[in-house]
This record gives sequence, structure tokens and C-alpha cells, in this order.
Amino acid sequence: MAMPPPACPRRLLPLSLGLFQGALLLFFTLFVTYDKPSAQAEDANLMANQLYGIFPFFQDIQVMLVVGLGLLLAFLPRYGLSALTHNFLLLNFSTQWALVLQGLLHHLHHGQVHLDLRNLLTAEFAAVTVLISVGAVLGRASPCQLLVVAACEVPIYLASEWAIVTRLGVLDVGGTITIHVFSCYFGLGVSKALFGAAQWPVHPKETPTPRSDLLSLVGMLILWVFWPSFVAVLCQPGDVQRRAILNTLLAMSASAVTTVVASSLLERDGKLSPSHLQNGSLAGGVAIGAVADMAVPPVAALALGSLSAVACVLGFRFLTPFLARKLTLHDQCGIHNLHGLPGILGAAASAVAILVASEDTRFSQTSPMGGNASEVAGGWWGDREAGGQALCQAAGLAVAIGGSLLAGLLAGVVIRLPCLARPPERLCFDDSLYFKIEDQVGSSEPGGTTEEGALALKEQV
Amino acid sequence: MAMPPPACPRRLLPLSLGLFQGALLLFFTLFVTYDKPSAQAEDANLMANQLYGIFPFFQDIQVMLVVGLGLLLAFLPRYGLSALTHNFLLLNFSTQWALVLQGLLHHLHHGQVHLDLRNLLTAEFAAVTVLISVGAVLGRASPCQLLVVAACEVPIYLASEWAIVTRLGVLDVGGTITIHVFSCYFGLGVSKALFGAAQWPVHPKETPTPRSDLLSLVGMLILWVFWPSFVAVLCQPGDVQRRAILNTLLAMSASAVTTVVASSLLERDGKLSPSHLQNGSLAGGVAIGAVADMAVPPVAALALGSLSAVACVLGFRFLTPFLARKLTLHDQCGIHNLHGLPGILGAAASAVAILVASEDTRFSQTSPMGGNASEVAGGWWGDREAGGQALCQAAGLAVAIGGSLLAGLLAGVVIRLPCLARPPERLCFDDSLYFKIEDQVGSSEPGGTTEEGALALKEQV
Amino acid sequence: MAMPPPACPRRLLPLSLGLFQGALLLFFTLFVTYDKPSAQAEDANLMANQLYGIFPFFQDIQVMLVVGLGLLLAFLPRYGLSALTHNFLLLNFSTQWALVLQGLLHHLHHGQVHLDLRNLLTAEFAAVTVLISVGAVLGRASPCQLLVVAACEVPIYLASEWAIVTRLGVLDVGGTITIHVFSCYFGLGVSKALFGAAQWPVHPKETPTPRSDLLSLVGMLILWVFWPSFVAVLCQPGDVQRRAILNTLLAMSASAVTTVVASSLLERDGKLSPSHLQNGSLAGGVAIGAVADMAVPPVAALALGSLSAVACVLGFRFLTPFLARKLTLHDQCGIHNLHGLPGILGAAASAVAILVASEDTRFSQTSPMGGNASEVAGGWWGDREAGGQALCQAAGLAVAIGGSLLAGLLAGVVIRLPCLARPPERLCFDDSLYFKIEDQVGSSEPGGTTEEGALALKEQV
Repeated sequence: MAMPPPACPRRLLPLSLGLFQGALLLFFTLFVTYDKPSAQAEDANLMANQLYGIFPFFQDIQVMLVVGLGLLLAFLPRYGLSALTHNFLLLNFSTQWALVLQGLLHHLHHGQVHLDLRNLLTAEFAAVTVLISVGAVLGRASPCQLLVVAACEVPIYLASEWAIVTRLGVLDVGGTITIHVFSCYFGLGVSKALFGAAQWPVHPKETPTPRSDLLSLVGMLILWVFWPSFVAVLCQPGDVQRRAILNTLLAMSASAVTTVVASSLLERDGKLSPSHLQNGSLAGGVAIGAVADMAVPPVAALALGSLSAVACVLGFRFLTPFLARKLTLHDQCGIHNLHGLPGILGAAASAVAILVASEDTRFSQTSPMGGNASEVAGGWWGDREAGGQALCQAAGLAVAIGGSLLAGLLAGVVIRLPCLARPPERLCFDDSLYFKIEDQVGSSEPGGTTEEGALALKEQV
Repeated sequence: MAMPPPACPRRLLPLSLGLFQGALLLFFTLFVTYDKPSAQAEDANLMANQLYGIFPFFQDIQVMLVVGLGLLLAFLPRYGLSALTHNFLLLNFSTQWALVLQGLLHHLHHGQVHLDLRNLLTAEFAAVTVLISVGAVLGRASPCQLLVVAACEVPIYLASEWAIVTRLGVLDVGGTITIHVFSCYFGLGVSKALFGAAQWPVHPKETPTPRSDLLSLVGMLILWVFWPSFVAVLCQPGDVQRRAILNTLLAMSASAVTTVVASSLLERDGKLSPSHLQNGSLAGGVAIGAVADMAVPPVAALALGSLSAVACVLGFRFLTPFLARKLTLHDQCGIHNLHGLPGILGAAASAVAILVASEDTRFSQTSPMGGNASEVAGGWWGDREAGGQALCQAAGLAVAIGGSLLAGLLAGVVIRLPCLARPPERLCFDDSLYFKIEDQVGSSEPGGTTEEGALALKEQV
Repeated sequence: MAMPPPACPRRLLPLSLGLFQGALLLFFTLFVTYDKPSAQAEDANLMANQLYGIFPFFQDIQVMLVVGLGLLLAFLPRYGLSALTHNFLLLNFSTQWALVLQGLLHHLHHGQVHLDLRNLLTAEFAAVTVLISVGAVLGRASPCQLLVVAACEVPIYLASEWAIVTRLGVLDVGGTITIHVFSCYFGLGVSKALFGAAQWPVHPKETPTPRSDLLSLVGMLILWVFWPSFVAVLCQPGDVQRRAILNTLLAMSASAVTTVVASSLLERDGKLSPSHLQNGSLAGGVAIGAVADMAVPPVAALALGSLSAVACVLGFRFLTPFLARKLTLHDQCGIHNLHGLPGILGAAASAVAILVASEDTRFSQTSPMGGNASEVAGGWWGDREAGGQALCQAAGLAVAIGGSLLAGLLAGVVIRLPCLARPPERLCFDDSLYFKIEDQVGSSEPGGTTEEGALALKEQV
């Protein structure tokens, strides 16, 4: 009998995670405190108001990431427990890891780190990139490998976010470029480097059932409902935040309807594809992030939502199979269709919005009432000329794609290390590899037990 | 072999929806903008507070409609994907359609339409009526037919709401009359006109399983939790909103317990019926809408909640079978029991509350301290005499029932057009008619494939 | 053939519940009103702000208790409907019952009861203890028995909470001692008294399936997300509330990661146990309640979260089997591991936090800048000396454990009354005993029908 394929040693995961928790405790002991309590009653009132401003948004985002995204990933019928649990674990680990990295950076410059909800939120955004990226290798990578991906991706995200937003001055309030595009190409890089030119027939456990599709649909709906909070949480309160919320609502509504149109037209007999629905309805939210707070008319949000839903559905129908055939690129969840294509569309839209707004301003300057337009130096995007800002948006997109693809490929090479070996093909997409499940009928395939026994033997670190 | 029954041509749905999306874009381009940004910092602060006031309510309502109602409708074991998706599609389409209609009306009078969260919310309320109405024909009508129902119902709802609230001055903060009663009888009208005197034996896919009942129960619980937001969102902030929330909480709590009592007493062996639970627990929320903001004592809310739960359970047990037998009226979800009966109870309660309050005022006027009662012209319901206002509530109820029943019958006649033919009986209640589902065991019934093939042939528009 | 085991008479439940609803209406008629409306506009504004402050927290908690906890308990594959429904019913009944008791106490001292959201919230906290306690006997007790447990536990909780918080002055903002520890030992007392020394082999319907585990996992995630609202809702707005939220977030994040570590290390082949995950991830939230609002450094919250997760997982692995073997103590949901052990840890942590803070203050008093430390009389825990307050925390814990264990044993004796007989072993963990379920495959076990028929015969009260 052939040697069983290698697998991630079982003790590696808890031991490394345990070590990390120890290091986290040490780091917090040394460097992290809460803000000083504010002494005055007025301040306390203000503080409470600020808290009530950000906390509901924060909770909405937590629901999205923990429940919504977890369920969205549960479309594999025998991999639901793993999808939810790995998502949950990665979210917590990556947030903690981002807190440490942010804290270290801050500490080097300013001393003691003062923890507040805003820190936690930006750390959670770093974690989102990990959750998106690993969608490309869902079900075929071990938790150990996913943790290494997270360990690599978080610092690279922080660097990339710094380069794109702080250095280049790219406008991207909803993370279209910095989060969605970045994580998509990072994930595709990981997938390419990890799987190489491997090709498998369709796995028997890879096909969703109506029941698992239903769970995933519920996940999509939860994400759909709370998406405006994700986009608008870091906006300035008031007008700008209100506009970001409305733009997102319009884009998502257009996406939902357009997805049905596109999916129904593309499938031969007019039926809907569950995976189109699960992803296309969210495409508008991905794309709108870069323009949500800009002074665009409502119709722009609608159009962007529709367009990105079409791009997403077309991607599922044509691009994913094409990439799989030509580049042997595996993209299990279709992250390129949900995050890549709509993200690029959103970035392009932000550049166009800036150019158009500048035209409008110029027009209004030639008009008799345009006198006070000169007061707005450059525009709502800051001091830059419109053309320059639009170029910046493009440059940011290029940095996000190029950097993440490269970094993803490297991370993918790292997780090919033999000590992190991935699950054998036969045990992919199966909860029973990671969970103590009693009485699961399907896992009693011939050979399954022997192979698992061999895995267990290999597990002593 | 006999001709397969006709079905809704598959291309009709995406093409008409696509056309509508185009028209929507055009309409938004021409007529819709956001509010002007407010210049002063104080205003921005005020704006932010207003936003934080309404936005959490809005999100709660979105969760109710998208996730809660979707799951509640998923009690058919093989129709979950369709129930969730059709609900989601109809919500988005109807909201957009209501925005267009509201916008056109507004535009004719005031020019440019300024979009804000409040517009969206009232448009969403119009969509709710559609979501309720189609419950009567769940599983037996095609998506095309549902869209035509939505297209008909939204303008009629807007007219009816204008007549009842603006013209008659009916008090109905939570939509008991304008939303629940209206949509119930509209739906029953559609069902009667669509199905005529057709009678079918129990469909093998019509019986809930414990698993689908569980999903539906979760949907009910989500609706139950967020219902206070639905009732109170349009209340004046402060005392009135607080009272509306408390009244709703009390009514729903009484409903929940009373439903168990009633269901357990009615079933022969003391068991509970899942459908009673799924609906009765919400009956209090439906009924309380018309009185939630009135100055009624807490006990009134409790009593109304209990009473409407009893009415709902009795409706399921006796009225629905009776109507089905005598009038061949099909009501798949029992909307008459959840929205009709409790809605009528709520309307009656509002009239009683007004009369009682007026008695109280008269008493207090005769009392020595009643001097300042004359300052309140009429009462908290406005300038009218109490008797007049109570009559108005009754008139509003009559308009809602009569108008919607008539309009529903007409809409039902429209969707009997041959080009919108509904699914053949054999394929009712089955996701596989609308979704590309791989590997579904049950769809391989003999004849299924042939029939579906014939449907596919008919689909070229 | 042997006599079928006795069962709870079916009419007892609806009749007693119905009587209670009647009594509730009477009580509300006589004693309960809403607050007087506040006349001034400023007041209204203030009221609105207070409402917006507490209402989102209240809704979060409702989601936790109704949806999250319900789903968490749905891990028994054929008992999901019952778990959700009994949880929902008990929540409503116990809240109403607590309102009555609180109202009576208040009425005796102050006359008319003015209902507001805060009353409802504290009544709901009383209900939480019931929901936790009955976890120990999940699936083996009839709804009648559960209601009697609720009827007993609510007044005892109110007394215990008064003794611990009001009399002893124990600090416990998140209910670690008053809610979690109390309800855990109450539940264990009930279980011991109810089941005595009974021992059963593993019930065929007792083993979770991947699907039921998935539902339970979703419930855990919902609880996990909203837990900060539960802990912080009664905090003073401003700094203290913000700190409570942040501490809870940190503790829960540490719990989530540590649970994976501990579970993976303890299981022989490195797999995860779903029940560890479902409970361990929440242990941090239980423990943090007693210290959440204290001026502890962030690392303390992390450490407490990790520690309690370890305690919870160890409890499941070793303590629960040990107690079952030695004391024949049945703890179906493992409430001792989720609420008992972390609760004790949290109480200990609160004592330590007070002592350490007092040391810090003394140190800072000897420092040159410590001049204004003397202004803080005693510390943030009030006027007492630190040692005294720490002792109080310990005394509160002792009262909670001792009192609840005793009261629970008594309540368990009460529900052994023959008229409340529990379901026969064969029909335990089965929805079909309580729900009218058509077409359930598994209930057609030989003998099932006969036995159910015998039960039905016994049901005439």
C-alpha cells in the first residue's frame, strides 16, 4: 500500500497558538493600557456619545464577520463546522496579531499603547483580509497553513495600507482597494503557489446541497444587511457618513436585482445559480467602498452596484473556469469574482468620480455664481489636482494588486513546507478530519480509517 | 402523452427586471439627488444625532425583512432557497419601484427628489405589503407572477396609505391597518382570482419537516426580537417612541405565552403545532401597531397581545380550513391568521382606546383639577372629537379591507395571463424548478425530467 | 405489558399558564402604569438620548437570549424545536413572573409601579438564570417541570441578588456571581434532586450530529458577538461602560483562541470537540462580568479569558465525567463548565483586582506625586477598605453557591411530584413528544405509538 500523503502534524496547531497567546499576554503586560479616564462630566458625556456612535457599527461588523461570513463559507455540505470554526479562529488570531503589530509600531514612536474601540476596529479590518484570502483555498488547506497565511498577511496588509492610504493618499473609505482587492490577489497568489499545477476531478464532497446552499444564502443575507455599517464606520459622522450609508444601500439593492437578471440570463434554462446569488448580491458593497463617501449622485451608486453584480456573475460563469483551465488557478469560493473584479471596478469608479467632480467644479467656476468655488482648494478629495488624485487611485490599485500577488505567492511557498503538509485529497472538504464527530455516516468510506490512523501516528511533534 | 402544463417563460423574468433596472437608472439620473450637505458644524452634529436615531431602527427592520421573514417562509422543506430568494428579490424590486413612484409624485409637486433614509424606509414599508401578500400563494406562483403582483400592489398601497392616513387621518403608527390588513386582503384577493375554484390534494412537498420548521421558528424569533423597531421607527423620538416600544414588547410577550396555551389546548393530545407558534407569537406585534403610541395603560398592550394570539391560533385551527372548504380560498402561509385577524383586532382596539381616553378626559374635566384639560383640544389624537376619530379608524379599516380585496382580485386576474403561466402542480414547492441544483435526490421523480425539458423548450421568448 | 411510565398531564401546562396570564392581566390592571410623560422639550430630548443609550443594548440582549441561546441548546439532533421553544417560553414566562414579583415588592413600598425599559431588563436578567439552570436537565424534563423550576427560581434569584448586591455590596456588573454562578448551582441542585441516583446508558438521540452541532455553533457565535452588550448594559455610560465593553471583547477573544488550543491538546488525535468550542469560547464572557468595569489593565481581561476557557474545557474533559460517575450528577449541557467554573474564577479575579488596586494606590501614595490619591476614599469600589471588599466578593460567591444549591435541591424535590412526572426515558430528547410533527421518519420505532397512546389517555386532567 502506498504511503499516506503527509498532513499537518496535529500538535503543531495548539502548541504554536498557545505560544502566541503567551506572547500576546506578555506584550499586553508590557505595553498596553486603556485610555486615562476623563475627569470632567462633560467629557464623560462626550465619550458616551462617541461610544454610542461607533459601538453599534462595531457590533454590526462583528455579526458580519463572525456569523455572516462564517455561514457564507458553509456552502460545502460536509465542511460547515470547519468553515465556521476556521473563520472564527482566524478572525480572533489575526485581530490579536494585528493589535500586536500596530502596538509595536505605535510603541516605537509614542510609548505606551492606549487601547480603544478604534484600535480594535482597525485590527479587525486587517483580519478581514485574511478571512477573504483563505476563501481561495477553502477545504484544501489545513488550519496550520491558514494560520501561517494569517501570520504573513497581516503585516503585509499593514504595510500595504500604509503605502496606499498614508503615502499615496488614496481615497478608500470602505476598503475596496486596501481590503478587497488586496486580499483577493493575496489569496490567489497563495492558491497558485500552494497547489502549483495540480488538477483534481470534482471532489464528491465539493458540490453544495440545497441545504448547505441555504445556510450560505442566509450568511449572504446577513452580510447584505449589515454592509452599510462596514463601509461607513470610519466615515466622519454627519453628512459624509449619511451619504456613505445611502450610497451603499443603493449599490447593494441594485446588485441584488441585477444578480438575478444576470444569473438567469446566463444559465441555459433560466434557472438561478445559488453561487451567483450568494456572491453577486454583495458585489455592489465591495465596489462602492471607494466612492461611498464621495459627492456622487445617487444614480452612480446604483449603476456601480449593477455593473459589479454583472462582473461578478460573468466572472463565475466564464473567468473562473478559464483561469482554472489556462492557469490551473484554484479559487474555491470565487473570491476573484466577489472581491477582485468588483474591487477593480470600484477603484476605477473612484477615479472617474474625482475627474467628473473636477469638471463640474470647473463648469460652475465659469458660471456667474461660481465665485466661491475657488475656496475649495482642489476639491473634497483634498489639496491635490483632480487628475493627480485620479492617478493616485490607479496607482493605489496597482500597488494593491502587484504587492499582494507577490506576497501571496511567497506566503504560498512558505506553507508548502513539509511540516505544514495539507490534507490528503480524499479527506478534503470533510469536517471529520478536524472535529471529533461521533456517528457520522459518510466518513466510513473504505480506507478512511486506515488513512486517518496513519495521520494520527504522524502527529507526535 | 398530454401536453405539459404551461409555465412562466424563463426569459421573461430577467428581461423585464433588466428593463426595470434601466428605467430606474434613467429615473435616478433625471430626478434624484442627495440632500445638500449642511454647512455648519452644529447642523452636522444634529444630522449625526438624527442619523444615529433612525439608522439602528432601519437596520433592525432590514434584518427582520431580509433574514427573519425569509426564514419564516422557509417552512416548506424543499422550497427554502426559493422562499428566501423570492422574498429578497421582491423586497428589493418593490422598494425600488416604490422609490420611483414616490419620487414621481413628489417631483410633480416639488421638483428634484432628495433621497434620505426616511424615503428609503417608507419605500421599504410599501415593499413589506408585497412580501406579506405573496405568502398566500407561496410555492404555487412563479417569480414572474410575484413581480407582477408587486408591480400592481405598490401603487395601490401608496394610494390606500394616502387615503387612510392623509385623507381620513387614521392613527396607525405601526401599520396595523395600512400595512397588515391591507396586504392580507390583497393577498387573499390575488389567491382567489389566481386559483379560482381549484382544489388539490395535499402536495407531498407541502408538509414541513422538523428541520424546515426549525428554520421557520428561527425566522419567527428574529422577527419577534426586532418587531419593536418596526412599530416605533416612525414615532416621534422621546416619550411617544418609548411608549411604543414598551407597548410592543408587552404585547409580544403576552402573545408568545398565550400562543402556547391556545395551541396546546386546541390540539387533541396537548402537543404544540409549529405553525401556531411561528405565527401566533407575532400576532401581538401586528395588532399593537395601531395603538402602540397611544396613551393606553400597559395592561391594554398585554390584553391585546393575548387576544390576537388566541385569534391567530383559532384562525389556523378553524377558519382557514373553513375558508378553504367553503370558498376554496388557498392561504398557504395563513396570512389571514397572522395579519388579517390580529389587524382587525388592532384597529378595533385603537377605536376603543380613543373612546375610553375621551371618557377619562370628560371625567377629569368634571373633577376639580380638570381645569387644564380644556387646553388639549380634542385629545392626543388631534383636533377631532373622540367619536369622530373612532369612526375614522373604522372607516380606515373598511377602506383597507375593501380596496385591497378588490385590487387583489384584479391583480390576480392579471397574473392569470397565459404568458405568466404558473408552475405545474407537480413542480410546485420545489426549488429545483428555479435553481440550478446539482445532485438533488428528490427531483428524479419519473416524468420530472421530461416535463422540465418541455418547460425549457417553451422558454425562448 | 408493563405500565407506561407516568408523564406530565398534557392539560396541566396550558391551564396553569393560562391562569398565570389572567393573574398577570389583573396585576397590571391594578398596579402598573407607564411613567408620566415629561412635559418639557428638553426633557423629551434627554429621554430620547437615554432611550437610544439603552435600547440597542436591550435589543442585543434579546437576540442573545431568544436566538443565540436557543440555537446553542439545539445541539440535540431531534430536540431542536423543543429546545428553541422551551427556551422562548421560559424567557417570556420568567420575565413576566419577575415583573410581577418586582412590582409587588415595589408596590408595597412606593405604590404605583412605573414600567420602563430598565424594569424589563432586570426582569429579563432574572429570566436568564432560569434559562441557564434548565440546561442541566435539557431533554429529560417536561415543560411543566421547567415552568415550576422557573416559578421557584425567580423569587429566589431576586432574594439572592438583593442579599449579594444590595446587602453585601458585592461588585458584579456583568452578573458573574449573581446570575451565572447562582443559576449553575441551582440547576445542578435541581438535576440531582430530580434524577437521584438514576443512571442511563447513552441515549440514541443524545448524540449531536454535525448538522445539529452546526446550529449550536451558530448560536454560540451569536452569543459571542453580543456578549459585550450583556455585560455593559447596566454600567454607567461613559468611561466605565467603554472599559466594560473593551474588557469583555478582550476576554472573549482570548477565550476563543485558547479553547481551540485546549481542546486540541486534550483530544487524543488533536481534533476539536464541538462541545468544547460551543462552550469554551463563551467562558471568558462569563468570568469577566465581575471585573469588567474595574480599573484593571487590558492584560488582566485577556488572562482571565484564557484561564476560564481552559477551566471550561478541562471541566468538560474531566470534571463532568467524574461528577457523573461519583455523584451520578447529570449535567446535560455542561452548565457547570460554562457557568460554574468560569464564574468562580471571575469572582476570585474580582477579589484579586481589588486587592491589587489597593496595593497600587498605597504605592502611589508613597510616591511624591501621590498627593491626590487620598481624595479617593477607599477606591473605585466605594467607601470600604480593599480587604473588606475582597472578602465581600468571596462572601457573595459563597452565598450564591450555597443558597442556590440548597434552593435548587428543594425545587428539584418539588418537580418530582407525581402530577409533574417527566417523560419516559424512551421518549426523551424527542420533539415528537411535544410537537405535532407530521411525517417524522424516526418516531416510528416499535412501541413508540403504543406508549404515546397511553400518555394521551393519561392526559385528561
